Amino acid sequence: MAVYTHVPAEEMAALLARYGLGGLRSAKGIAGGVENSNYLVEAEGGRFILTLYEKRVDAGDLPFFLALLDHLADRGLPVPRALRDRDGVQVQTVAGRPACLIEFLEGVSLSHPTPAQARATGEALGRMHAALADFTPERPNSLGLVGWAALAARCGAAVDTIAPGLSARIAEEIAFLDAHWPTDLPRAVIHADLFPDNVLMLGDAVTGVIDFYFACTETRAWDLAVTHSAWAFSGDGADYRAEIGDALLAGYEATFGLSDAERAALPVLARGSALRFTLTRAWDWLNTPADAMVTRKDPLAYLRRLDFYAAHPECFPA
Amino acid sequence: MAVYTHVPAEEMAALLARYGLGGLRSAKGIAGGVENSNYLVEAEGGRFILTLYEKRVDAGDLPFFLALLDHLADRGLPVPRALRDRDGVQVQTVAGRPACLIEFLEGVSLSHPTPAQARATGEALGRMHAALADFTPERPNSLGLVGWAALAARCGAAVDTIAPGLSARIAEEIAFLDAHWPTDLPRAVIHADLFPDNVLMLGDAVTGVIDFYFACTETRAWDLAVTHSAWAFSGDGADYRAEIGDALLAGYEATFGLSDAERAALPVLARGSALRFTLTRAWDWLNTPADAMVTRKDPLAYLRRLDFYAAHPECFPA
Repeated sequence: MAVYTHVPAEEMAALLARYGLGGLRSAKGIAGGVENSNYLVEAEGGRFILTLYEKRVDAGDLPFFLALLDHLADRGLPVPRALRDRDGVQVQTVAGRPACLIEFLEGVSLSHPTPAQARATGEALGRMHAALADFTPERPNSLGLVGWAALAARCGAAVDTIAPGLSARIAEEIAFLDAHWPTDLPRAVIHADLFPDNVLMLGDAVTGVIDFYFACTETRAWDLAVTHSAWAFSGDGADYRAEIGDALLAGYEATFGLSDAERAALPVLARGSALRFTLTRAWDWLNTPADAMVTRKDPLAYLRRLDFYAAHPECFPA
Repeated sequence: MAVYTHVPAEEMAALLARYGLGGLRSAKGIAGGVENSNYLVEAEGGRFILTLYEKRVDAGDLPFFLALLDHLADRGLPVPRALRDRDGVQVQTVAGRPACLIEFLEGVSLSHPTPAQARATGEALGRMHAALADFTPERPNSLGLVGWAALAARCGAAVDTIAPGLSARIAEEIAFLDAHWPTDLPRAVIHADLFPDNVLMLGDAVTGVIDFYFACTETRAWDLAVTHSAWAFSGDGADYRAEIGDALLAGYEATFGLSDAERAALPVLARGSALRFTLTRAWDWLNTPADAMVTRKDPLAYLRRLDFYAAHPECFPA
């Protein structure tokens, strides 16, 4: 991920003035996050992230995301709030794009989390779900069961170039999920993308939960399943790390908890998560030139997770 | 420019420990610079840039660059020095690549510099040349007159796809420069790439000169010619900004100065600079896929400068 839109320092300084944050001291384009342009900006009044929303984020969704972050921040969750300028405005136009000046949070994304760090993440996810119990705005999930079937159809047989037989395996799994997907579990707004990249930590403490741009109204326990599939495996998906998975679940149970029905559904929800990332990675794989200067993420790393979940439902204790 | 090599936060924390800089508080991959991987790292002991050297920088050149930065920093120039760890080591191995932890300098790169800012840059260039008078290490310039001819040969007729007749125009200019290039002017180590991107400023003050990875032993006045061609035009090269060019020259004269022979050679040196960037941009243009996620810089923006310098040698007062 790169900086896509160049913001002249002169325009950045003028923007800061609207927030009364003093002079611009430094600005570096930063990599990472979804496909937005991000700058780490230092003003006399503090450090901030300036995000310009590029094509992947629909500007019409911004009010939902900003309300969500305000709601969580108001309840003490460590999420980066978009600042309001002197006129109370959160969404600016910078270099022709919708843009927000966002709080900077300390902490680093871990590559090799420990069980204690996974537990803290499970706790933070539970606290977030508790804080969202009274959050009323909704946003549909375009990447739910129906969306997966549509995406599988758009990928078609081309996925067999990634791995022989992959299209048949995907069709089979969609049929399984369609038959077994729980439809009566509690729904709520969820993060839906709580990868280690999106959790900032200092030591064993969560100091930030970031990148809410997939947040949507969904089966709430699916958020835990997504987090489990993102955290509890080696990067290539070949090794399940029970101590990480268990710690994550224990942390969530300690702060929010699952009903018996949700607990029983976790093996199916986790298969859904593994399929979702297999599919989106396969789509990106097929549509990213091999020589493009972005790292293509291996879809098979999630197919391996899918195989594991299908073979080991007992990794979620009943 | 993107982050090419991922450095796990755990490895970054271990690196900081070798410098006695306390715990890791934040790390963001940053865009920009030549094709290295750069992270803005915040430790308890301060802010730093972690640079991993990728293919474009020859590890064998690192001792030259580091000695150059130490030499300039020792003489009070605002350049980012590579830190030494507790064992006195500057070049580390991080994620399998040579890497340095480098001082962070405040300031921003300007997109629309004023004459006062151009003057400060000319002054800084002159101070740098004064400070380098007793710097003895040498590094050949692979992008001098001989290198241009070789690069033009490698580009061949393909450049005519960028603009009709471009290959003939380049051949003509190389013949002109070959006949008129000054060979008896003072040589020294120069920056050789002092674009606005590589100068950090706060207000009208230069707070940092960065990116020395093209530094080499060359005709010293050529550094001023490169800076002039980079600063004194609109981005597309269509408009010469006399007030910027004049301020740059005045700043340089105030802190270091040109001999009569150097002053007389500036029009030819500036044509050489315009040709150098026309050629390297043409090469990158021809060898960068149009859909790659890097911005291709327009070679014609420098061909226009070349045309201007050929038509207006009087822009450099005798």
